[in-house]
Amino acid sequence: MRVIGIDPGLRNLGWGIIDTDGVRMSHVANGTCHSTGTDLAARLLSLHTQLTEIFTGYAPDTAGVEQTFVNKDGAGTLKLGQARGIAMLVPAQAGLSIGEYAPNKIKKTVVGVGHADKTQVAHMVKMQLPGVVITGPDAADALAIALCHAFHARAGNTLSAALARAGA
Amino acid sequence: MRVIGIDPGLRNLGWGIIDTDGVRMSHVANGTCHSTGTDLAARLLSLHTQLTEIFTGYAPDTAGVEQTFVNKDGAGTLKLGQARGIAMLVPAQAGLSIGEYAPNKIKKTVVGVGHADKTQVAHMVKMQLPGVVITGPDAADALAIALCHAFHARAGNTLSAALARAGA
Repeated sequence: MRVIGIDPGLRNLGWGIIDTDGVRMSHVANGTCHSTGTDLAARLLSLHTQLTEIFTGYAPDTAGVEQTFVNKDGAGTLKLGQARGIAMLVPAQAGLSIGEYAPNKIKKTVVGVGHADKTQVAHMVKMQLPGVVITGPDAADALAIALCHAFHARAGNTLSAALARAGA
Repeated sequence: MRVIGIDPGLRNLGWGIIDTDGVRMSHVANGTCHSTGTDLAARLLSLHTQLTEIFTGYAPDTAGVEQTFVNKDGAGTLKLGQARGIAMLVPAQAGLSIGEYAPNKIKKTVVGVGHADKTQVAHMVKMQLPGVVITGPDAADALAIALCHAFHARAGNTLSAALARAGA
């Protein structure tokens, strides 16, 4: 199963792709889409085009997207929301299932604690994906999201399989 | 010139299309995209598909999109932001210029005052587009956005033309 993790952002949108056979995880690719253009519409179009190319090139089977942190900065929340709309649209257009995870859930899954800092997250990503070269902070977060999604999808499948065996 | 106005919303996205020759305005069509699906990704995909069909069917030349009101409800702002991402993406994918207008600017342009209520806005839309049948409140707002965009585009063209004549 190929899993993509997406860390939404209007200027920088991180992505990370891993393969998993249900037990082992291996790194495929990671990077950051930098939106180009001077206005909002051009930036959103640029993100959509770049992310669509990544989906076409790597053909992931399922996607994890970070839930956006809603804060008191309404204008910031709106910008992030618009970028997140694109981050959700592209996997939906590809017909993929999408898991959404809050930042502290991602950290808790990957590092073991919900308040881990970025250095710890990047360290654990490297531990779990030997040989990975992380291309930037947003790509590191995206790989953590992919690992979190793979873990929860695996847990879900295991549960389904166990239930099926039990005839439930 | 064919102008589309879009009133973004995650559940109900209003759209209204008018034609203008620079002086007269005439109604073409109006309606509301109701997003279907139980999760966010399905709703965004549904809005994108419906709005893309409208663009394909009516081939507008330019688009006006309402600027979203940022309020204290962060979760509401985020939802609207995600829908607005789609409302901006579709005209950008069609290669159109996009004008963004704050709600009070739209009201001031169409009704003459920035604090007009919805009834007044709908009344002025009917006055300026004889024979129009407004299909709903979000569609009425979208037609007002189209009228606002047509007016400002016309003003811009007039200014450009005047400047060209003056050799500026």
